[in-house]
Amino acid sequence: MAKYKVSLQYAGTRYAGWQIQKNLTTIQGLLKQAVETVSGERTNVVGAGRTDAGVHALEQVAHFRLEKRILPKHLARALNGVLPWDIRVLKLSEVAEQFHAQRDALRKRYEYRIYNGPVLSPFRYGFVYHCLRKLDVAAMQHACRFFEGVHDFSAFTASSSKVENKKRKIFLSRIKKKGHAVSYLVEAQGFLHHMVRNMVGTLLEVGRGRLSADDIHAIFRSHDRRLAGPTAPPQGLYLVKIWY
Amino acid sequence: MAKYKVSLQYAGTRYAGWQIQKNLTTIQGLLKQAVETVSGERTNVVGAGRTDAGVHALEQVAHFRLEKRILPKHLARALNGVLPWDIRVLKLSEVAEQFHAQRDALRKRYEYRIYNGPVLSPFRYGFVYHCLRKLDVAAMQHACRFFEGVHDFSAFTASSSKVENKKRKIFLSRIKKKGHAVSYLVEAQGFLHHMVRNMVGTLLEVGRGRLSADDIHAIFRSHDRRLAGPTAPPQGLYLVKIWY
Repeated sequence: MAKYKVSLQYAGTRYAGWQIQKNLTTIQGLLKQAVETVSGERTNVVGAGRTDAGVHALEQVAHFRLEKRILPKHLARALNGVLPWDIRVLKLSEVAEQFHAQRDALRKRYEYRIYNGPVLSPFRYGFVYHCLRKLDVAAMQHACRFFEGVHDFSAFTASSSKVENKKRKIFLSRIKKKGHAVSYLVEAQGFLHHMVRNMVGTLLEVGRGRLSADDIHAIFRSHDRRLAGPTAPPQGLYLVKIWY
Repeated sequence: MAKYKVSLQYAGTRYAGWQIQKNLTTIQGLLKQAVETVSGERTNVVGAGRTDAGVHALEQVAHFRLEKRILPKHLARALNGVLPWDIRVLKLSEVAEQFHAQRDALRKRYEYRIYNGPVLSPFRYGFVYHCLRKLDVAAMQHACRFFEGVHDFSAFTASSSKVENKKRKIFLSRIKKKGHAVSYLVEAQGFLHHMVRNMVGTLLEVGRGRLSADDIHAIFRSHDRRLAGPTAPPQGLYLVKIWY
């Protein structure tokens, strides 16, 4: 028996997200299939976190077990031979039986990429959110700092969310600008469903002048999903890195 | 009557190249259609050069005439509204009646992008040539300088080429390396059909140790297409810039 930790990169465009769902093509589903094809065994794949349909990953982490031990570099190469071009194994290693990709994650970084210029390059299409209206990036930079620390994110998660404790601690929340490219970086141990995209949607409202930085506090206190901004489109979002 | 110069960026993946061809979707064809839709007039579009099926452009230049004068910034915006996402108008201006996108070009730069690492990122797929075998980049850097100057490129053009004078002057021929990314830059006033891809195919043979830098001279002298390397795949090639 051996346990493996795998780092993956994927373009989420063609998939219904990470998590296995009936009759839908998902990244977890394709990875499980690939491991089973390569090993000839049945297995389960556990990911560090779920990414939504259309969301990308520069580095997602998952684990799985196999009865038979396979040399990690051979296994990685074989998986890349079976997986489609938009899902790639970057690293693969054998880990201790105790390792758990989801429960052991200490910190996750997400990035949201916005292109705030008039003409979107064909080479960026599907990989950023194209916002035509000129954003007040300084206001967004000011507002985004209000997310740092411990807050109840009820107003920033899908109203259908069944998670009881909606308190999360945000370690870092920053906006960088380089020419027309605006990028939002956020780090926490974990995030609620749609939480990052709802935070970005709210920051975009700040950038458009429809909300102010001070409104963030009122939205936190309200616990009301309707007061925060709309869910930002998935194609701008990247799971960047997971620390263990 | 007004004449317009337009700068375009496109991802060539979905197209049968620049030039209008019956029953095929081409960039020239879509641009002509877009101009006709927006203006309500019939027109012709003349490009600085043809790019092959699957080849990209960071900046292609073309001209066309219209009876009716339209404000360039309005025309540019309207064209981007009609063109598909993978063809974008970057700049548009009114030019003198004498301007000719092809005949007036003084210098063109092409770039060929190679990824020479084990795992190709999903975010680069279709936008570089993935060469798995480790290339001797120093040998390629040495060999590529042999292309500079005036040479007869008979051995480096499609054997079906009907162009009489196959002499071309190469202003610049360089290879840059950054990590696993290898990029070939070449500049000339004009290129023959498949010429850049055949030059790259030959440099790849040098990188693989199947040809040496000295062979380049012998290939020039032979005028024999079969002695040069195979045509490199289109997805690595970019028309970068045209000087007037």
